Amino acid sequence: MKIELQPIAFVKNTRTQPTDDFWGSVISEIELEKGVPEEALSNIDLFSHLEIIYSFNKSKPEDVVFSGRPRGNPLYPLMGIFAQRKKDRPNAIGLCTVELIKHEGRIITVKNLDAIDGTPVLDIKPVMKEFQPKGEIRQAEWVSDLMKDYWK
Amino acid sequence: MKIELQPIAFVKNTRTQPTDDFWGSVISEIELEKGVPEEALSNIDLFSHLEIIYSFNKSKPEDVVFSGRPRGNPLYPLMGIFAQRKKDRPNAIGLCTVELIKHEGRIITVKNLDAIDGTPVLDIKPVMKEFQPKGEIRQAEWVSDLMKDYWK
Repeated sequence: MKIELQPIAFVKNTRTQPTDDFWGSVISEIELEKGVPEEALSNIDLFSHLEIIYSFNKSKPEDVVFSGRPRGNPLYPLMGIFAQRKKDRPNAIGLCTVELIKHEGRIITVKNLDAIDGTPVLDIKPVMKEFQPKGEIRQAEWVSDLMKDYWK
Repeated sequence: MKIELQPIAFVKNTRTQPTDDFWGSVISEIELEKGVPEEALSNIDLFSHLEIIYSFNKSKPEDVVFSGRPRGNPLYPLMGIFAQRKKDRPNAIGLCTVELIKHEGRIITVKNLDAIDGTPVLDIKPVMKEFQPKGEIRQAEWVSDLMKDYWK
């Protein structure tokens, strides 16, 4: 079974390299692809946060792994690819919750998007309180260490 | 630009119709597709919650809209498709945060997944505290009304 998608928008920012950390200061514009009408963003500013689903389009098929130590760090345990958020994964889909700063016509401006310039966007969804995790979040111990500079 | 994906797993549950509400009691199994090795789920139970990215594969291309009133309710405002979570959307991608109940070999059992039996899964990501929305969530007024029976 094959599922064929097309970008609905593209990311525009100053970040050209998919390096690991320091995404906190990046401001990105997301501009609708020309086949998508402006109405697709109507009233999006009624929401403070959005989920951006995008394609890690620089990830090469030959780099995809099914498990590994996060960032190759020998101090971290071996994790399945679906137990980490590494970009070199089957289907190479990225997902990030961003803050909506501005909406103007075919462009939204967002903060805290961990995608580089030119990234194809597959979907945008509004964050709703009712879709937040129910109950307390428990996570692997290595996460807070790995993430310590991510949003700086 | 076309992006071709393949399911990495499939949903198995008792829900056969994509009706709007009452997803709270649905327990789903997600079983890896046979081309994906079991190691892809290694140590996934170090996380309490997962993000499931899936395909609304019953959504027909001719039903896709770019805007509309959520659930056709005349009391709700006109919203762009990227300002609501309706299934009939470009690329027909669904996204839901679930609770992980059990992991056994090639199967994870989850709660609070709003996908029907047979749904192709495109990606699974662990929920990390550091990827939660930063700051307070503000949302459109109609959301809490629309969602009132969703998780019952």
